[in-house]
Amino acid sequence: MALNRKIRMGMVGGGRGAFIGAVHRMAAALDGKIELVAGAFSADAKKSKLSGEDLFLDSSRVYESYQQMAEQEAALAEDKRIDFVSIVARNDLHFEVAKTFLEAGFNVICEKPLAYSLAQGKELKAIVEKTGRVFGLTHNYTGYPMVKEAKAMVAAGTLGKILKIVAEYPQGYAITALKDEEDGAISNWRMDPNVSGVSNCIGDIGSHAENLGRYITGLEIDELAAELSTFIPGRPLDDDGNMLIRYKSGAKGVLYASQISTGDENNLNIRIYGTEASLEWHQEHPNELILKFAEQPRQIHRRGNVYNGEVCGANTRLPFGHPEAFIEAFANVYLGVAEAMADQIQGKYPRAEGYDFPTVADGVQGMAFIEAAVQSSQNNAAWTKLDL
Amino acid sequence: MALNRKIRMGMVGGGRGAFIGAVHRMAAALDGKIELVAGAFSADAKKSKLSGEDLFLDSSRVYESYQQMAEQEAALAEDKRIDFVSIVARNDLHFEVAKTFLEAGFNVICEKPLAYSLAQGKELKAIVEKTGRVFGLTHNYTGYPMVKEAKAMVAAGTLGKILKIVAEYPQGYAITALKDEEDGAISNWRMDPNVSGVSNCIGDIGSHAENLGRYITGLEIDELAAELSTFIPGRPLDDDGNMLIRYKSGAKGVLYASQISTGDENNLNIRIYGTEASLEWHQEHPNELILKFAEQPRQIHRRGNVYNGEVCGANTRLPFGHPEAFIEAFANVYLGVAEAMADQIQGKYPRAEGYDFPTVADGVQGMAFIEAAVQSSQNNAAWTKLDL
Amino acid sequence: MALNRKIRMGMVGGGRGAFIGAVHRMAAALDGKIELVAGAFSADAKKSKLSGEDLFLDSSRVYESYQQMAEQEAALAEDKRIDFVSIVARNDLHFEVAKTFLEAGFNVICEKPLAYSLAQGKELKAIVEKTGRVFGLTHNYTGYPMVKEAKAMVAAGTLGKILKIVAEYPQGYAITALKDEEDGAISNWRMDPNVSGVSNCIGDIGSHAENLGRYITGLEIDELAAELSTFIPGRPLDDDGNMLIRYKSGAKGVLYASQISTGDENNLNIRIYGTEASLEWHQEHPNELILKFAEQPRQIHRRGNVYNGEVCGANTRLPFGHPEAFIEAFANVYLGVAEAMADQIQGKYPRAEGYDFPTVADGVQGMAFIEAAVQSSQNNAAWTKLDL
Amino acid sequence: MALNRKIRMGMVGGGRGAFIGAVHRMAAALDGKIELVAGAFSADAKKSKLSGEDLFLDSSRVYESYQQMAEQEAALAEDKRIDFVSIVARNDLHFEVAKTFLEAGFNVICEKPLAYSLAQGKELKAIVEKTGRVFGLTHNYTGYPMVKEAKAMVAAGTLGKILKIVAEYPQGYAITALKDEEDGAISNWRMDPNVSGVSNCIGDIGSHAENLGRYITGLEIDELAAELSTFIPGRPLDDDGNMLIRYKSGAKGVLYASQISTGDENNLNIRIYGTEASLEWHQEHPNELILKFAEQPRQIHRRGNVYNGEVCGANTRLPFGHPEAFIEAFANVYLGVAEAMADQIQGKYPRAEGYDFPTVADGVQGMAFIEAAVQSSQNNAAWTKLDL
Repeated sequence: MALNRKIRMGMVGGGRGAFIGAVHRMAAALDGKIELVAGAFSADAKKSKLSGEDLFLDSSRVYESYQQMAEQEAALAEDKRIDFVSIVARNDLHFEVAKTFLEAGFNVICEKPLAYSLAQGKELKAIVEKTGRVFGLTHNYTGYPMVKEAKAMVAAGTLGKILKIVAEYPQGYAITALKDEEDGAISNWRMDPNVSGVSNCIGDIGSHAENLGRYITGLEIDELAAELSTFIPGRPLDDDGNMLIRYKSGAKGVLYASQISTGDENNLNIRIYGTEASLEWHQEHPNELILKFAEQPRQIHRRGNVYNGEVCGANTRLPFGHPEAFIEAFANVYLGVAEAMADQIQGKYPRAEGYDFPTVADGVQGMAFIEAAVQSSQNNAAWTKLDL
Repeated sequence: MALNRKIRMGMVGGGRGAFIGAVHRMAAALDGKIELVAGAFSADAKKSKLSGEDLFLDSSRVYESYQQMAEQEAALAEDKRIDFVSIVARNDLHFEVAKTFLEAGFNVICEKPLAYSLAQGKELKAIVEKTGRVFGLTHNYTGYPMVKEAKAMVAAGTLGKILKIVAEYPQGYAITALKDEEDGAISNWRMDPNVSGVSNCIGDIGSHAENLGRYITGLEIDELAAELSTFIPGRPLDDDGNMLIRYKSGAKGVLYASQISTGDENNLNIRIYGTEASLEWHQEHPNELILKFAEQPRQIHRRGNVYNGEVCGANTRLPFGHPEAFIEAFANVYLGVAEAMADQIQGKYPRAEGYDFPTVADGVQGMAFIEAAVQSSQNNAAWTKLDL
Repeated sequence: MALNRKIRMGMVGGGRGAFIGAVHRMAAALDGKIELVAGAFSADAKKSKLSGEDLFLDSSRVYESYQQMAEQEAALAEDKRIDFVSIVARNDLHFEVAKTFLEAGFNVICEKPLAYSLAQGKELKAIVEKTGRVFGLTHNYTGYPMVKEAKAMVAAGTLGKILKIVAEYPQGYAITALKDEEDGAISNWRMDPNVSGVSNCIGDIGSHAENLGRYITGLEIDELAAELSTFIPGRPLDDDGNMLIRYKSGAKGVLYASQISTGDENNLNIRIYGTEASLEWHQEHPNELILKFAEQPRQIHRRGNVYNGEVCGANTRLPFGHPEAFIEAFANVYLGVAEAMADQIQGKYPRAEGYDFPTVADGVQGMAFIEAAVQSSQNNAAWTKLDL
Repeated sequence: MALNRKIRMGMVGGGRGAFIGAVHRMAAALDGKIELVAGAFSADAKKSKLSGEDLFLDSSRVYESYQQMAEQEAALAEDKRIDFVSIVARNDLHFEVAKTFLEAGFNVICEKPLAYSLAQGKELKAIVEKTGRVFGLTHNYTGYPMVKEAKAMVAAGTLGKILKIVAEYPQGYAITALKDEEDGAISNWRMDPNVSGVSNCIGDIGSHAENLGRYITGLEIDELAAELSTFIPGRPLDDDGNMLIRYKSGAKGVLYASQISTGDENNLNIRIYGTEASLEWHQEHPNELILKFAEQPRQIHRRGNVYNGEVCGANTRLPFGHPEAFIEAFANVYLGVAEAMADQIQGKYPRAEGYDFPTVADGVQGMAFIEAAVQSSQNNAAWTKLDL
């Protein structure tokens, strides 16, 4: 990324106390290539102001609303105004915030899910295409070096023809709500259909599992049969979901996600089985990739080694044995988008060979997946195609 | 087991080269409570004879057929003839061999699946009930001490109400058939509908996963939606199967089994999620049981410790850290049945408090599970109830 | 082992309640090649009798003393009397029991350590050589298939030149004596110098670690610098020991053993580092062997695979993924000795190519190791050579 | 850290291609509390300039030498000049660079080892004390949240009295030098006594293992018996070292470090055994801490949980299951020092309750450890006390 300055970032959402906003800021800061210069951190203007102070921002660039921010930043000199906005507000705001900034001429990095609904997602995709702006979606698990290595192995044919994908994403945090419904913020807005959309569990984490499988293998889901459940009484959305998948290639899949899997933390795992070899990756031990052949010793590929492929290596900061983790993977998504933005600034966007970060198209795919899962479940797990 | 002599065992099947027959013999021999004294080891009389010699048996008790064996053993003096027969012949023979010995007055230990079909299984159950003989089925994974500990934990309420069961059983051995269809015996008869019955993969190993979940939790399957596949071209039966499960209690389940999961060996795993805690057990590391609470350190319960429950302890031979494994678990099934047979010999069968080994009823349940899975898959994964 | 009958075993020690005697009996019984026919199970004649009843032995062959047993068994017809005696009595009896049976013409399998002292051990070795009997020592950890695979890898040069061996054997069981000195039998006799010899911890388990390293690599210890400690107050022997090792080849070593490592169970681990590759084996997960090259993916070699070497395969009973463990490894030692005894019975002992089981020479080596460690520790960890 | 601005950092060393400088910059940048504003990145003025451009620094603050930097920064207005310098130059420069900046009135964060020799280290400690500046040493492994949790457990008495510490730090990277002495930079300067000091392996990584044990337990080494080796021919310093340790408390220790442990990466592990419980921590899986009691299930404490102690929690950025790793731990050291510097800026330094980061005193301790190990090894592993 041969740019002679840092890329300037603004943020919408992520005020005091918000988890994911802080992650985005650390990811952006890590490599010294991006600087946070502006923000509308909360719908509450006072909270936005205080958050800006926490972050040592120039108070003139801490805004009372995202609309104000888009307008005033657009009015700044080109060498001062933000290059992109990072959207870490709640799901129901993604669409309108992204639209506002795209149409004001800014690039966007947006938290997933892409939007409140598939319809919104499709509309947003059209806006991205019309405006020609760079749009990155933080399906952050694709940022892990060993996930990129897995993708490279599949692309190189190491696994042969893919027969089966098993993706699982059990979490257990919601179970404590059974005892203390006051446990608060995290569980609650995700459980509000007006904020989250049609799904909580599949929308929030099932979509990561879907994206991860697609990122690594490139396989497209043809149809799925899903059973969503709500185990915490009184909640309007799913907190657990299991499904069978048929891929267009003929491969089969099992995917499940859960927030009531007591004692599981962020236990995203994927196993991909091919005719020649299979692989496993476990998010909680992200520096290893397990490769299994039928009649050879099991192989543990570890980050930072000379035998890692080029893309894996390029997304690695530390030598072997010095573990990297969640924030570094997140930062890789930011770096990937920054690469495209640097090209844009230098008039070289888009590159012919493309980029390696999740896009608005991935977001639309994710929304279609979520809505198909909900629809299937409402139809007694009937096979349901993705509306793409 | 306060019997003043060893229990006498005969065997049907398990001749030279057979895998599972040798396992049954080691399991029976391990504890010095059972002795092998007779056998019809093969439909080929000469091979049966040679197998008897390998085992240092009295040649007068190595038979040319199981029918001959049943007849001649029944004619021996009470203090000489076998107490039970171990049936390790192929699936399609289980029913008739078991029937023959039960009606000749012998107890039976039978390999799973119970029979070639659910109908046969139900008939066999009626015969067992009518004859009053002891009948054990070698769902051997229930013999592991830490599986018994898991069952005890669920029974004690440690997990609270069970919400979800995830049972997986991937193997990869069949994938080599893609390269060398001459690889032979194991793959082949299991793939022959005339021998195996309606299913290969779900019948052979999926039924173990089902049985394990039921053994630990006691939950009954209400209905299932299954997708069975045949990935190895030219084979008439399934080599992979995935399913969603609804339990009568309201719990949900995911169960899958596979023989084409390249590089997986005998990777049976089960996770059981409850409102208070969850547990995991991995067959390839059987001495550990993982117990997870929502807000406590994860616990690893290990075999051979003072904190293990009574049943776990009674099924343990070695101190902690001295690992036990597959054969010892298998031997626990034999010991469990031997306990009942010792009671019977001493006129105390059945005990009011029951026994701890898989029975003909488990076998019928297993056959109903297999047939429901096949039927569901034939109906495009429609929800299908077990015919019990 | 092409013998047309079972090999007949007698046992000295191992009466009711003894742990290791039961392990020996299971190991001997597992494969159906050895039958227990006689015993002097306890110095207490009544207890010996009751133990014989537990084992369904002919009462005429349950003896009041080992001397009686040796004499009367020797007087039996050749086709009836025992082929060998298994000695599972306490350390201080090994020498005289072994001597008695060897001189009476019997083969011997003996628990380790070989004897009460190095001097006794050397004398016993001379007796074995003079009598020409088969003598096996149950350094059982060498019976694990993946340990044999490790040995084969070293022999094949896979590791290059060996630079370093790290062998560790922490147990924690003795720590509970701090709270309850009544905890009893296991801790106590091992802590009695009149029974155990000059060392408890290094003698009991440190010697296993030493033997394992030597079995795999063939390297000979030149000298060692040891620090032995007694952490449990009031005990006369060591319960912990650490040492530096210099091998004759120039390799270096670290070896430690402990009985006060709270919460460790039987945590024997070995790592062997060579110029080309290194390997790790962990007794509590014995079916795996980890092989590490400098610039290749880590390899996990697993028991039961086609890529395992010949000796590993020959010491394996079950297919991959069906775990084997402690008893099976122990049984491999018995099978190894049985092989030699079968040769002897058939007049073919010893084979030119040798056998694969621990011998009296290993026992002498172990005694020299133990005494050198004690002497070094008494001399403030001065470098001390083995007296061989 | 309630400061209303970022803390300003300068860097000495860490130019293009340097590994550890980049780590320091990422660690400093991660939390948005520290900004890099100046540097003398290389003794080569041109390389320093280019490195400054890579980092988007104001060219007027990229210096040709550290002396120039100290002088000119000191001349800047108080609200502009750096608050501290981060020293990532080679070992032999630590002392003079640190001295220069301390005496010019700046705070210091310094890579370990503290200095080229113990004598230098002691002199530097005196300078720190005289100047009253804040001095942090990047023994970064103490920054891991679960290491801090381990320290808290020991302090709370959870382990009882500590009996034994086993610290191991095998790496294998140097072994490739056997094949290709051109492998370069990393191996080479560390192997140069004029740069590294009296030791390579013990100095570079053994000192981390020593520091980690002391950080967690507070135990002081009384004396040690060490055996250092050089396995790579032609090298003047050690590439492997093993030692026995006696702590002043009566506890015993084993510590080893290696750079020729083929295939090991950065395999720092520590086990601490107490009368009540023991714990294990593995740097390559840093989010877990294993706690073992004698007669209770093993406990796995995981970062980010409500049951973690206060200090652990305060050093954590992400929720459970979202792994943190090396950079985040490194950043915790920076945050710890920043806390002290913020106090200083606000006139509140030092706090009565102290701080939680490695200091110059830790550095002196480390130098004494290194020199004692070298001296012991030169004296045939004689017991050697630390010169403190």
